[in-house]
Amino acid sequence: MSNVDDIKNSGLAFTSWVASKQHHIESTLEQCLPDANLAPCMLHSAMRYSALKGGKRIRALLCYAAAELSTYEPNVADASACAIELIHAYSLVHDDMPCMDDDDMRRGKPSCHKQYDEATALLVGDALQSLAFEVLSQSQNYAHSQLSANQQMKLINLLSKAAGSKGMAGGQGIDLAAVGKDLSQSELETMHRMKTGALIEASIMLGAISAEKSSQEAIQQFANKIGLAFQVVDDILDVEANSKTLGKTAGKDAESNKPTYVSTLGLSAAKQHVQILYDQAIDAIRPLGDKANRLIELAGYIIQRNF
Amino acid sequence: MSNVDDIKNSGLAFTSWVASKQHHIESTLEQCLPDANLAPCMLHSAMRYSALKGGKRIRALLCYAAAELSTYEPNVADASACAIELIHAYSLVHDDMPCMDDDDMRRGKPSCHKQYDEATALLVGDALQSLAFEVLSQSQNYAHSQLSANQQMKLINLLSKAAGSKGMAGGQGIDLAAVGKDLSQSELETMHRMKTGALIEASIMLGAISAEKSSQEAIQQFANKIGLAFQVVDDILDVEANSKTLGKTAGKDAESNKPTYVSTLGLSAAKQHVQILYDQAIDAIRPLGDKANRLIELAGYIIQRNF
Repeated sequence: MSNVDDIKNSGLAFTSWVASKQHHIESTLEQCLPDANLAPCMLHSAMRYSALKGGKRIRALLCYAAAELSTYEPNVADASACAIELIHAYSLVHDDMPCMDDDDMRRGKPSCHKQYDEATALLVGDALQSLAFEVLSQSQNYAHSQLSANQQMKLINLLSKAAGSKGMAGGQGIDLAAVGKDLSQSELETMHRMKTGALIEASIMLGAISAEKSSQEAIQQFANKIGLAFQVVDDILDVEANSKTLGKTAGKDAESNKPTYVSTLGLSAAKQHVQILYDQAIDAIRPLGDKANRLIELAGYIIQRNF
Repeated sequence: MSNVDDIKNSGLAFTSWVASKQHHIESTLEQCLPDANLAPCMLHSAMRYSALKGGKRIRALLCYAAAELSTYEPNVADASACAIELIHAYSLVHDDMPCMDDDDMRRGKPSCHKQYDEATALLVGDALQSLAFEVLSQSQNYAHSQLSANQQMKLINLLSKAAGSKGMAGGQGIDLAAVGKDLSQSELETMHRMKTGALIEASIMLGAISAEKSSQEAIQQFANKIGLAFQVVDDILDVEANSKTLGKTAGKDAESNKPTYVSTLGLSAAKQHVQILYDQAIDAIRPLGDKANRLIELAGYIIQRNF
């Protein structure tokens, strides 16, 4: 684990960057979400409740880190980072509903359907998804307009695919069908790549939209490995972390008899697998030089996280 | 009602056009929905179940009719018509769920959560929404590519706004909050404009994206009136039609104590209101000449429908 430890100790610069980007995405989201006083007030207030003040904003951070591989100014990624966090927030609201994971806690507070009600939670998720595509399609509000209309179309296409039935929603569909079944490692990988990996990958690729074509393949390779590593770490945390640190109910996977990397490979092999994916991810982008440093640091942050 | 009767009797040409466009949108949707054999199979088969072989495709028809106001070839509107029908299908699936309207029938067959289950219905709606934006952002598959990237961005922006919390989902939010309350006609109008009107309007405005700038205002005016008329007719049908013709459970609004135009104005005044909105809609686009004929015919079809 020496590479990872080096990164862990690499000091304040990274920590400051994370804090400043977390603050920046929070205020960008604040601005793009409808005001809670605008009718329908309950829906808008529930949308803000679900999308603001929560989470470590890993997807936004990945998006901003990838944007450092281009020559554009960093806030070129504002609309993308915002849209991705909105899609992520919508997916959490719907996943927590009684007909899905039936989870009462999220990000350390009552989940949307507990704080409001189920019908509101359904609409909140639906409206957050629409808003993500609204944000990506109105360039004038964002530095985003440095991008051409064709590049913006590409962002929308990438995000819609990552969110849909061949991405995140599809992974959820496989997950539903998998409860109580033994999956092979390869089936589990497919499920994880879609369920969580697709949106993590998209976060990086949307950020990298303006990077040079010659770097895109390396970034794609990195994104693919980190997307999967992220979910394996999730599986490990579900077993090892407690609910308070996690901000959601721990031990849910085992309780609901869902196949995970830990149940399939065992805890120790799952951890080894994370390290291998991390190494492959780093190897892919090291040739891009110093500009890739933020992504490398973030990769370490992701696999060492306890939330 | 003389204008309407004239249209009703205007003969086969319109009926043939409707049938041919209904057939065309069905096969376009067939192609853009993921194959039922593609994993996750249950999700994909449920998406096809919910989006295909159902409905009169009024929104697609409006989109195609509006496209006749431009000089582009008619299938320039394929992607738009498809995306709008996907958004409409997603909204029906979510609306029928137990936490919303709890409706067991839709388009004459069991609603999605009855045919499959609630979790699947939730994902189906989510994935159909993503697919709508995927379709609009991949120009190469459609004649749609006659449009510039900027025009395509505009389509996405219009549709995302019409679907979201300031449009359809927002109207649902007001609807939820209104159960058991007396609304004024103006509050009811706001709710209806958002809940149904926004997507009807968007269907027309997406079709008209390539129409001349000078016609856009007249078309917008038409779209606005017809969007509202559509919902008032819905309220009337909920009282007058039977479940078989309607393809969904009739009398639901009264049963669930929802304010409607009929409960607010009475049946006779609601019908008069439809006629006034129809007249205003027609007056707005008559100056556009013969090219507007399909829209005028469709307006008659919409207000005289029994489904």
